[in-house]
Amino acid sequence: MLEEILPQQGRLLVVSGPSGVGKDTVLERLLDPAQRPPNLVRCVTATTRPPRAGETYAVDYYFFSREEFEARIAENFFLEYAPYGERLYGTPRDFVERERARNNDVILKIEVQGALMVKQAMPEAILIFLAPPSWEELERRLRARQTDDEEAIQRRLQTARRELETAPRYDYLVVNDDLERAVETLRQIILAERCRIVHGDAHVPPPPA
Amino acid sequence: MLEEILPQQGRLLVVSGPSGVGKDTVLERLLDPAQRPPNLVRCVTATTRPPRAGETYAVDYYFFSREEFEARIAENFFLEYAPYGERLYGTPRDFVERERARNNDVILKIEVQGALMVKQAMPEAILIFLAPPSWEELERRLRARQTDDEEAIQRRLQTARRELETAPRYDYLVVNDDLERAVETLRQIILAERCRIVHGDAHVPPPPA
Repeated sequence: MLEEILPQQGRLLVVSGPSGVGKDTVLERLLDPAQRPPNLVRCVTATTRPPRAGETYAVDYYFFSREEFEARIAENFFLEYAPYGERLYGTPRDFVERERARNNDVILKIEVQGALMVKQAMPEAILIFLAPPSWEELERRLRARQTDDEEAIQRRLQTARRELETAPRYDYLVVNDDLERAVETLRQIILAERCRIVHGDAHVPPPPA
Repeated sequence: MLEEILPQQGRLLVVSGPSGVGKDTVLERLLDPAQRPPNLVRCVTATTRPPRAGETYAVDYYFFSREEFEARIAENFFLEYAPYGERLYGTPRDFVERERARNNDVILKIEVQGALMVKQAMPEAILIFLAPPSWEELERRLRARQTDDEEAIQRRLQTARRELETAPRYDYLVVNDDLERAVETLRQIILAERCRIVHGDAHVPPPPA
């Protein structure tokens, strides 16, 4: 009888945090079909990198040529986009809007700078900062990945320090000290937000520096 | 490493909603020692009614004489107070502040008008509106209590209609269609709020009419 005071569409939940904090593992677990909350979908993003074997268009990524991608930038197709090395990656606005209109919550994993850009473009987005329990643990996790040399690790740690400074602009802080606990907290946030009455004073952070 | 961006004290959670919606049953279940979230205490309120057999001062209520109660009103001792029939009831500010300083979340059950007064006095309070699934169900529950005659039931229903209009000033809406589900939702809200970053733009509703 009162549900109309709740938002009549799904939410956009943005999970971010420094490289090495465990964003992928946490989201994979949250979205595991055996325990995934109902009406929650992962945002399919766009990329100019070619599909790998077994990857499907619109399931894993929207695969665009560089020309297609750039044409879509001009059309305001992306909530945010950014280059990584040679490639472009972006968040398609219409995917988010379509799923929200179906009353699905959309969860987007993105790096810190991108998360703040999404909040600029869609101020009602709910930003969740996944933080490491300590610097030592973050460094340990980066080394454990064995993907980076010492210089790259030091660069990632330096970036992480800058990124942690933006956490106060987020809506939630989840410390990933224990995987199951972090997943459970994320699930609680998602379900609690479904009961949240929005007062039109959503926090809009200043644009990223 | 980042916990300092979260509030460094417990929260005040206010559960309200119309008479007959099931506030007592939901809170009793939430606070059941077998499943109560850690660091959550129920607010002990003050009253001028005399203790009943088995009731203990500062556990069930703070029992004050009318003179003591009125002296405390003058001292700004209460976050809010109100008469019910011959008696006065109030929420002691110092109980709430003491428990919050101990990093305990305080949960307060209160009628709708009182909840809005608490939010005025403590704008960071988190207001949760417990709503019936339908008018018919609210009427059925009021009749099932067998405590009121027809006139009293009609009066309560009329009051409920006015109270439901204030729900948009709350922070959360929980529909009590199923007891276990309502309790679980309340628990999710409490735990999610512990990770919430407060931006200093807490919603302050206009004073109750």
